[in-house]
Amino acid sequence: MLISDAPSLATRLPEADVLLVWDFLSDAVRHAWPGPGPRPTWVHTASAGVDRLLFPELLESDTVITNARGVFDRPIAEYVAGLVLALAKDFRGTWAAQDQHRWVHRETAKVYGSNALVVGSGPIGRRIGALLQTLGVTVELVGRRARERDPAFGRVHAADSLPELLPEADWVICAAPLTPQTTGMFDAGTLALMRPTAHLINIGRGAHVVVDDLAEALRAGRIAGAALDVLPEEPPARDSPLWDVPNLMLSPHMSGDTFGWRDDLAHQFLDNFDRWHAGRPLLNVVDKRLGYVPGEET
Amino acid sequence: MLISDAPSLATRLPEADVLLVWDFLSDAVRHAWPGPGPRPTWVHTASAGVDRLLFPELLESDTVITNARGVFDRPIAEYVAGLVLALAKDFRGTWAAQDQHRWVHRETAKVYGSNALVVGSGPIGRRIGALLQTLGVTVELVGRRARERDPAFGRVHAADSLPELLPEADWVICAAPLTPQTTGMFDAGTLALMRPTAHLINIGRGAHVVVDDLAEALRAGRIAGAALDVLPEEPPARDSPLWDVPNLMLSPHMSGDTFGWRDDLAHQFLDNFDRWHAGRPLLNVVDKRLGYVPGEET
Repeated sequence: MLISDAPSLATRLPEADVLLVWDFLSDAVRHAWPGPGPRPTWVHTASAGVDRLLFPELLESDTVITNARGVFDRPIAEYVAGLVLALAKDFRGTWAAQDQHRWVHRETAKVYGSNALVVGSGPIGRRIGALLQTLGVTVELVGRRARERDPAFGRVHAADSLPELLPEADWVICAAPLTPQTTGMFDAGTLALMRPTAHLINIGRGAHVVVDDLAEALRAGRIAGAALDVLPEEPPARDSPLWDVPNLMLSPHMSGDTFGWRDDLAHQFLDNFDRWHAGRPLLNVVDKRLGYVPGEET
Repeated sequence: MLISDAPSLATRLPEADVLLVWDFLSDAVRHAWPGPGPRPTWVHTASAGVDRLLFPELLESDTVITNARGVFDRPIAEYVAGLVLALAKDFRGTWAAQDQHRWVHRETAKVYGSNALVVGSGPIGRRIGALLQTLGVTVELVGRRARERDPAFGRVHAADSLPELLPEADWVICAAPLTPQTTGMFDAGTLALMRPTAHLINIGRGAHVVVDDLAEALRAGRIAGAALDVLPEEPPARDSPLWDVPNLMLSPHMSGDTFGWRDDLAHQFLDNFDRWHAGRPLLNVVDKRLGYVPGEET
């Protein structure tokens, strides 16, 4: 086993059978990939998203990609449930008033009885939807393909239904994989379809949201608020105007990172490594054309 | 129907059959109560707590007290679930870092798999416990009396079990009625039994917690944090040291007050008034010796 950093990766990849990608937002693999020469037969990324690995040379090779599907589901789902409740109850306003020694009673929104639209029908989106259902929220799920009979959500909508679905949602939650179809899907056009009282939450990838469009919608009060755990540029520049957009919460890509998450990721890889070593089928094999692990979630 | 303020109450009470108490934290009823003379036969308080009405002259009279049992259950339960998640995920820290344009990744606690102790087995405590269970939290419930077989919680513990229960809890949540037995129950002695990683949440009454003891425990880091939606003195003085106690969240007695709550309270009273007018039994009749509505919850 060799530990490699970005500069040394190009010299090591041709000798490696297996590559574990720990820094999943790095482009180092793309830059160092040996093309048609000797290369790893298996790449595992310690992340749910595999977008950084979907470059042509790896796509077209017979190298297998696996991901960390499963490790982040519950942590991210409870993070999102926490955001929904914290935004509904305006905890930020409460803490701000406390900082100023002010006792400002307000009425706040009920979460039960509200409507959520979860975009992304993989394990993370499904877990988010299920947890919101237990809070009494009506959940509509959007996936790549429509499905009429879904055991948990009644039906799964296709992305082309967004124009009808967005105006009905109090909470719009992005948990989609980043693909050409989902990149920039939350822009001025789709944001304009949301309710003025609605909130957007993104725990997917930064590029799902056109942040300049979101900032403008928030400044104009066209939607009530947003929480972004991921950004196109992470971290944003210290003087980025994003930090101070009204009713925008920025969190540093931490929604799934509960105590012990690195251990959980390592154990997941080691379990799969045992399978590889024994010649058994790998778990969480990504369909490189789709950009995620196919299965019950598509 | 007459609307009365505190100064005019004493002259109006002898003529009234029914008193609706809207300002449930006021002592005006106690001050104005006509003693053995003509007086209302029914007092309804637009609150779950009835502590301000349990003065001797009213206790000993045959006047019936009813309360707003039921209106606040779900709003308060989701407020508490929101607090648990927001404290576990350190949203306050995230907002504080954002205010300073700082991107500070942290690991945070999982909520599922944690342990909560809910003190108060009335409808609010039960609803809190049930909602936390749906988040994967193990819940122990404490009531006035122990019960071996409880359908939702397996068993209900008596308050004298607190010394064994407090050291096991990650979340200690007070949803008890204020009675002589529960006043000051969270003091230096009980706080010392809590885990250093545990949080205390009080949505009951301010006097359940000895706030000076809590402030000292938080300053010394003996527990991880606390959220108080109720205080012995509301609002606290502008220069109260409470505002700035580390890891203490103060919210202005708003946990149950979702949009439309006043309408919900008014409708509940009017429904009961129709019963009174028709000579039918009233709902939510308080046992004045117990200090709450008896039933499945005790």
